[in-house]
Amino acid sequence: MLVLLRPEAAPEHAQVVALLSSHGLAPRTIARDGRVALLADEAPGLVEALGHLPAVAEVRAGASWVLASRAWQPVATRIALGEGVVIGAGSPPAIIAGPCAIETEDQLLTVARGVAAAGARLLRAGAFKPRTSPYAFQGLGAAALPLLAMAREATGLRIVTEALDEAGVDQVAEVADVIQIGSRNMGNYPLLRRAGRAGRPILLKRGMAATIEELLLAAEYVLAEGNPNVILCERGIRGFDRATRNVLDLAAVPLLQQATHLPVIVDPSHATGRSELVPAMAKAGLAAGADGLLIEVHPDPDRALSDGAQSLSLEVFAHLMSELTTLSTALGR
Amino acid sequence: MLVLLRPEAAPEHAQVVALLSSHGLAPRTIARDGRVALLADEAPGLVEALGHLPAVAEVRAGASWVLASRAWQPVATRIALGEGVVIGAGSPPAIIAGPCAIETEDQLLTVARGVAAAGARLLRAGAFKPRTSPYAFQGLGAAALPLLAMAREATGLRIVTEALDEAGVDQVAEVADVIQIGSRNMGNYPLLRRAGRAGRPILLKRGMAATIEELLLAAEYVLAEGNPNVILCERGIRGFDRATRNVLDLAAVPLLQQATHLPVIVDPSHATGRSELVPAMAKAGLAAGADGLLIEVHPDPDRALSDGAQSLSLEVFAHLMSELTTLSTALGR
Amino acid sequence: MLVLLRPEAAPEHAQVVALLSSHGLAPRTIARDGRVALLADEAPGLVEALGHLPAVAEVRAGASWVLASRAWQPVATRIALGEGVVIGAGSPPAIIAGPCAIETEDQLLTVARGVAAAGARLLRAGAFKPRTSPYAFQGLGAAALPLLAMAREATGLRIVTEALDEAGVDQVAEVADVIQIGSRNMGNYPLLRRAGRAGRPILLKRGMAATIEELLLAAEYVLAEGNPNVILCERGIRGFDRATRNVLDLAAVPLLQQATHLPVIVDPSHATGRSELVPAMAKAGLAAGADGLLIEVHPDPDRALSDGAQSLSLEVFAHLMSELTTLSTALGR
Amino acid sequence: MLVLLRPEAAPEHAQVVALLSSHGLAPRTIARDGRVALLADEAPGLVEALGHLPAVAEVRAGASWVLASRAWQPVATRIALGEGVVIGAGSPPAIIAGPCAIETEDQLLTVARGVAAAGARLLRAGAFKPRTSPYAFQGLGAAALPLLAMAREATGLRIVTEALDEAGVDQVAEVADVIQIGSRNMGNYPLLRRAGRAGRPILLKRGMAATIEELLLAAEYVLAEGNPNVILCERGIRGFDRATRNVLDLAAVPLLQQATHLPVIVDPSHATGRSELVPAMAKAGLAAGADGLLIEVHPDPDRALSDGAQSLSLEVFAHLMSELTTLSTALGR
Repeated sequence: MLVLLRPEAAPEHAQVVALLSSHGLAPRTIARDGRVALLADEAPGLVEALGHLPAVAEVRAGASWVLASRAWQPVATRIALGEGVVIGAGSPPAIIAGPCAIETEDQLLTVARGVAAAGARLLRAGAFKPRTSPYAFQGLGAAALPLLAMAREATGLRIVTEALDEAGVDQVAEVADVIQIGSRNMGNYPLLRRAGRAGRPILLKRGMAATIEELLLAAEYVLAEGNPNVILCERGIRGFDRATRNVLDLAAVPLLQQATHLPVIVDPSHATGRSELVPAMAKAGLAAGADGLLIEVHPDPDRALSDGAQSLSLEVFAHLMSELTTLSTALGR
Repeated sequence: MLVLLRPEAAPEHAQVVALLSSHGLAPRTIARDGRVALLADEAPGLVEALGHLPAVAEVRAGASWVLASRAWQPVATRIALGEGVVIGAGSPPAIIAGPCAIETEDQLLTVARGVAAAGARLLRAGAFKPRTSPYAFQGLGAAALPLLAMAREATGLRIVTEALDEAGVDQVAEVADVIQIGSRNMGNYPLLRRAGRAGRPILLKRGMAATIEELLLAAEYVLAEGNPNVILCERGIRGFDRATRNVLDLAAVPLLQQATHLPVIVDPSHATGRSELVPAMAKAGLAAGADGLLIEVHPDPDRALSDGAQSLSLEVFAHLMSELTTLSTALGR
Repeated sequence: MLVLLRPEAAPEHAQVVALLSSHGLAPRTIARDGRVALLADEAPGLVEALGHLPAVAEVRAGASWVLASRAWQPVATRIALGEGVVIGAGSPPAIIAGPCAIETEDQLLTVARGVAAAGARLLRAGAFKPRTSPYAFQGLGAAALPLLAMAREATGLRIVTEALDEAGVDQVAEVADVIQIGSRNMGNYPLLRRAGRAGRPILLKRGMAATIEELLLAAEYVLAEGNPNVILCERGIRGFDRATRNVLDLAAVPLLQQATHLPVIVDPSHATGRSELVPAMAKAGLAAGADGLLIEVHPDPDRALSDGAQSLSLEVFAHLMSELTTLSTALGR
Repeated sequence: MLVLLRPEAAPEHAQVVALLSSHGLAPRTIARDGRVALLADEAPGLVEALGHLPAVAEVRAGASWVLASRAWQPVATRIALGEGVVIGAGSPPAIIAGPCAIETEDQLLTVARGVAAAGARLLRAGAFKPRTSPYAFQGLGAAALPLLAMAREATGLRIVTEALDEAGVDQVAEVADVIQIGSRNMGNYPLLRRAGRAGRPILLKRGMAATIEELLLAAEYVLAEGNPNVILCERGIRGFDRATRNVLDLAAVPLLQQATHLPVIVDPSHATGRSELVPAMAKAGLAAGADGLLIEVHPDPDRALSDGAQSLSLEVFAHLMSELTTLSTALGR
């Protein structure tokens, strides 16, 4: 549970900690802009007992996202990744581009140089790939991580890559600027907790059938561990029409921005699964107000080891980038 | 079924008609740009027999949308409504605005003047309202139709209004420039057939759980009756998250534009059900490539007899219109 | 709106009628078990004015299903169709079987005799077929209605057949014991109203994406016109997995039975779209408490003009019937 | 990928291993009923090279579930847990009952004794609970595992409990007869792999928006690690109507039984989220052919720390058990 304390009752805060300790709990303190809260497990009768303490403003025991809310933090979170790359309201849209999976050094460097030349500031590329079938290509794994470091060195692009399990979070954190938690793992709470202690910003993708509230609660798991830097990603929800891979739910963008201070980006590639629809949906994502885009780009989509059908070629990506720049200007971004 | 004829075998076309007649069928001829097809009911053994005739290029007996396809008509359909109002590719986005239901003469004229002043060229307002409950306000009915004529006269706006049944098509056709067929009626095939003979363009809204193919087949019902002017409208599909009324499936816009020559518009009001999300989704719709937008506007949304929660005030609408104009320019429209 | 009157204030009922008349309304009276209600259109200020009259117990203006509720009628509706055929709680499950579409006299009589011999008491067969494509077989139409009368005469089976439009309701009512309103028309309110005046019980199928509440409100449209005999049918809702045609939502059965006094039946054929799954889902439907089943049977499923993939042969149907009988006994039905 | 070998070409099997080794791969061998397959990662050009070897029957590189299929193993898997408790075709339906979460020793033993007295053979109770909110009760954790051992000792019930992460699999394996992998983790492939090496049968719940094929592929991850004992569980998929928590997709039962040899059970509690619907859905599950049921039971549902609304009291459960016994007999189980 989360115990919100009255800032003006600072002297009595110790009473709250003492009560929690007497129940065998070890509370953790979270503070922001002068507001203070304690995080602790629940125990029978504890909520009521806390309610009697003068320092306690409120106790959140059930489903609630406090730290992610605009009520807790009215000012938009801006995530600075160095060399002027910032994700969040007030910055130009962050374009994150690259291949689904890292295949070879040559493939990765070709894409990295291409997307950097087109104006992207972040590279996305998977070393560890969650695949629906155990017999499908699962990514090069840890062996691909040095290639990401090499691409960063060669291009200055910031690196976004996915971790699939707790051990992977540590491995990935060594080379990545942002750690991605994929759709399939939005409800993997031990992994979210670990991500909350990773010391890196987290790009959290919405689960295939997750509500907006469930996405915010998943982010809350990360925030509650002390990591304030979470980027939410709308990437399509499962629908009844197989004409597209998923249904891109763009209304989630303004809806989330109303509810939370966290940056919200859009992934038109996984959403549609069809490269010819990606440019239109990328533009629609920006127009809906997204703080960034996550776009699959491959030097040779027809030969990609995974997700080729939804990857843009470097040429198409470069053309799209010029359209996005015009659009951003018109949108006043 | 639809029997596509070989244009170069014109002298033998009569054989096909003769064969159909010998089965008691009265085929109807559809021609476009030199291509000719016959429409007729099916009969046992007929498909095979037709296949033997030299004039027959192809027979479509199962689920297929021929007339709606770009293969049948590569050039985009443009629907001219007079005084320079045109809906379709190559024209500026058509903004259709107005209240869910006509309530009073004053309400309707206030909205009509307001949306016209803001730059809209078409007025949407319901005389006949399909309501989920038999005890909810069902619209003023036929009594409201003269008010629509009055609004048209006063503002020059073209009129879009819904018909709920076959009798209503005739009534509505007398005052409307475009007849709307609503989501609940997308699978009401007798109504679609009647709409195909109405002599007015049809605005056809996607059903709540209709696939893209089913929407195209519904349009085909109208086209097959000889009415070439159908506007398709994406208005949100039913989803699992009640945070929004529906899920706006914007990828339907480029997907439909790839498949069909018919204009495609977007209704961000019914899609979201929340007025504060409408501007973002209106902009996203344009960026996705929509040929127009259908937006609910009410002079006093808090007191609307229906759909107030998703209606924009005239002030918000006017501001949105200026944003849409900037956006259209940036998009080269 | 629906105005519920206080039975004990009968002398003052005339005041209510007078108030409504003074607003130009012509209210209709509905009575059941000593309870009385008035149905009328809405008018500004009327709800408040009604609230001041002593005879008015409650006014339902928004979305509400009163007549369909157990609160209005605690005792289950039982629909007697003659010769001992009854649908509703307390009777053996009603098995309604037959082909999707009537094709020929021979086909219809073969199925009718077969399903009667296997123990079914009702025949379902379509003269008018709603088809997704305008080029697909649409049924034999009115020409098939005499065949239904013939099948009734030959077997004693009660007849269930669909009407697609208002004109069709009258045609169908002449030969059918029960008129079916299909899924696509659950939101076709003019048709529901006409069904409410048809003088025949109505089998109302749940729309593809309709909530339980929307289904009850559709039934309310029929009941509000004075037709008390509505059978609700769960037939599968649209889902994301195309392994089955729809998702059979069997929890709707106990949920509806809790909420309403109307009989609830299950259609395992349209729900699954695969004949090999029909027997298991038919048994599951009965075990869930359904008051009946609607099952597609065809003498030669491989050659059916529509829905062959989901039709049982007469042999499989006869075997299923013996299993259903054993199951009914075990369930105490 | 999976390389299926020709059994009759046993002498040449070594060639296949040699080829894989020359690509730096360490294949693992899986054999069943005289059929042999090799599992290995993919490498460029390898599929084609393997195709040239005489010992290779087939290579499965993409999405495919081989080991789970009836083609690989025609005979149904039966999982024996000792003392006559068997899950799978040919055995009486396995009834697995108990509370969502272990709360206290007293609560657990009360339920265990109650469900055992009513005839259940397996106890389900959660030590580790995945909760949507970080501030909700997350279960007693490892501290609760000795209580499960105690309940097993006291009642002879077999134990089913969930593991949330890789470390948890080992902890849980020490006291559980069956390890549950929950819906949220159906796409957590590292966890599935670990479950494949746990030395205990796995109860795998279908993901909230998973297709039948995706469920089978998740099972394949477990099977491919050498654990042949996987129980599939239908527990409801996410739907648009919040009248129930989920939509119980019972057609999945016969569909899965057609496709796979693995046992299939049904969870009516999570599916509906409403205890008053559980008995009807439990009976429907059995009638659909399920090999077992997973039912939440709590000694005092109104005071449960989680999922009280969907838990049966011991009295209602005992009554349901007697109905299920009658039903099983009628179904010939």
